[in-house]
Amino acid sequence: MSDQGLTYSAAGVDIDAAQNSLQSVGDAITATHNENVLGGIGSFGCLYDGSLAEYDRPILVSSIDGVGTKTKIAQMTGDYSGIGHDIVNHCINDILCQGAKPLFFLDYFGCSKLDAAEFEAVVRGAADACKSAGCALVGGETAEMPGVYEFGEIDVVGSIVGVVEGSKRLPGIGMKAGDRLIGLASNGLHTNGYSLARRVLFEHAQLSVSDPLPTDSSTTVGEALLKPHTCYFNAVYALLQANSSIKAVAHITGGGLYDNLPRVLPSDLQAKIVQRSWEPLPIFRAIQELGQVPEDDLYRTFNMGIGMVLVVDQDDADTITEAINANGIAAAEIGKLHSGNREVTLV
Amino acid sequence: MSDQGLTYSAAGVDIDAAQNSLQSVGDAITATHNENVLGGIGSFGCLYDGSLAEYDRPILVSSIDGVGTKTKIAQMTGDYSGIGHDIVNHCINDILCQGAKPLFFLDYFGCSKLDAAEFEAVVRGAADACKSAGCALVGGETAEMPGVYEFGEIDVVGSIVGVVEGSKRLPGIGMKAGDRLIGLASNGLHTNGYSLARRVLFEHAQLSVSDPLPTDSSTTVGEALLKPHTCYFNAVYALLQANSSIKAVAHITGGGLYDNLPRVLPSDLQAKIVQRSWEPLPIFRAIQELGQVPEDDLYRTFNMGIGMVLVVDQDDADTITEAINANGIAAAEIGKLHSGNREVTLV
Repeated sequence: MSDQGLTYSAAGVDIDAAQNSLQSVGDAITATHNENVLGGIGSFGCLYDGSLAEYDRPILVSSIDGVGTKTKIAQMTGDYSGIGHDIVNHCINDILCQGAKPLFFLDYFGCSKLDAAEFEAVVRGAADACKSAGCALVGGETAEMPGVYEFGEIDVVGSIVGVVEGSKRLPGIGMKAGDRLIGLASNGLHTNGYSLARRVLFEHAQLSVSDPLPTDSSTTVGEALLKPHTCYFNAVYALLQANSSIKAVAHITGGGLYDNLPRVLPSDLQAKIVQRSWEPLPIFRAIQELGQVPEDDLYRTFNMGIGMVLVVDQDDADTITEAINANGIAAAEIGKLHSGNREVTLV
Repeated sequence: MSDQGLTYSAAGVDIDAAQNSLQSVGDAITATHNENVLGGIGSFGCLYDGSLAEYDRPILVSSIDGVGTKTKIAQMTGDYSGIGHDIVNHCINDILCQGAKPLFFLDYFGCSKLDAAEFEAVVRGAADACKSAGCALVGGETAEMPGVYEFGEIDVVGSIVGVVEGSKRLPGIGMKAGDRLIGLASNGLHTNGYSLARRVLFEHAQLSVSDPLPTDSSTTVGEALLKPHTCYFNAVYALLQANSSIKAVAHITGGGLYDNLPRVLPSDLQAKIVQRSWEPLPIFRAIQELGQVPEDDLYRTFNMGIGMVLVVDQDDADTITEAINANGIAAAEIGKLHSGNREVTLV
């Protein structure tokens, strides 16, 4: 090497590999574009029409997030097909809490060494998830960082921008004691709590990803852990537009119901959640039983089967619950608001 | 551990540590906010007024990027103060290539284990850089990913949204043979080429960050490598608004002049750059000499001292060059456009 002199690809970074991989998913990316996307891939910045003419007072709602160590499960199974869905849906759900519709999304893929198949699977998943929610995948970045990432590991980050009409911004005013909490089913951990889950399932209980899940033999540990983050946009957004009795939306991510529900509550109300109103998913029961994880810590780490909570006027709770179920997301009343101090209590 | 049951912080993730660190830089973050920022820290999404009333046809310009393995130099020296500036300025320069003014920025900090001092230094730097360019730091995310990041390593990602008036969008029309290329000085590698630089300087030449730079004994290797990415916004944006003879702006990042200048050129023009029109910075000469790096590879990896190139009408080239120099960024004519095939040639 010293005889030849050093070059960038000899130092572990191959710019062309990323470009070639990207071209193979170009069609999937282009399929997410609409008339508001004004530039092609390859510009320094990504262009999106900001006229937003159908809004009286448009508010841009943005978020950035990662998928955490769920990528390690993908690495263990070799299945990266859900990771793109995870990051996109996580971001979409976050801005849905303000009532926003997604406009455009950008992805970041960090790794020790680019594996073309992994990268393509992640970007294709992101493109498909964007397409499903009417969001444009406008750009992204790939970084090979040998020595920062452990060998074979990746991080996936996403950033989203959406829009909400000022008068429809959530959380809304008028939450009051008696308002109902409607829980929307998750399908697993979504993108939070993987460090604890891995420690319990793989280190402590010595399971492998291909083992049957002890609490549900119809699935493997790997399959249960890799279920893509549920997207609630299509089940909820139209109801927000039509129905002002949905007063708040909380995305149940890291910190669980305890940390996330208070983020949308006024300071003089508390949430009482009836724990028996839903059955925790088998994956959470497995983690609880195998790790002897204290129940309080479980509910502070995982969504436990509830991926989103709506705060709804009592009179419309049944109608809205039925509408969400009809939209394909299992929903049920799980509690209500009381006078209090922005706390969440499981009863 | 098994007697006590497993908890999330025992599994290596401390949610409270990130929250506490964030509070200590809260004032610096709040100082970046203006009347368009509509929500506080802690919401699911970040709110920014999208009315953009002063624009006839606003176009949103977005970008996502990382700082690459420059973080490893920060780790080697313990100095993380520039990394936030790096990511913000990289993003601002990218969207400046479309003529955009930054509106808001979001940061992502990934690590194996959160070090409060490192995190604070990075976020404070990001806030200060945002403030300098009139950009609001509206949100961010922190992820502890033991097992994905190598011990003590971090990745820093940023996402930016800016706006440009439709009629002022760059690259503009009317580039032609004879247009001048004005090079704006960089102060070092900015955020590209660190894998090669580290390999040459630390592995091959066995230097340490505290050694004097062989080509400039007034600075150390670490100091030369850590110079924060130059922000060109304040030197260039006002000229773009006042002066339609700036036809294109190219940010010279990974891939150097060869890869980045063609991104703004029409298919029937080429750029001829006079290599002797500037002196490569000492850090690049050190890498060249110590690593015996072929010159072509150097110019395809590093900015070599030119961080941004403007394509300017011949008649206004001198005036614009003087104005940029007066704005505090060293600038000089480094070449011109010729009929051709979107190539870059160094002559």
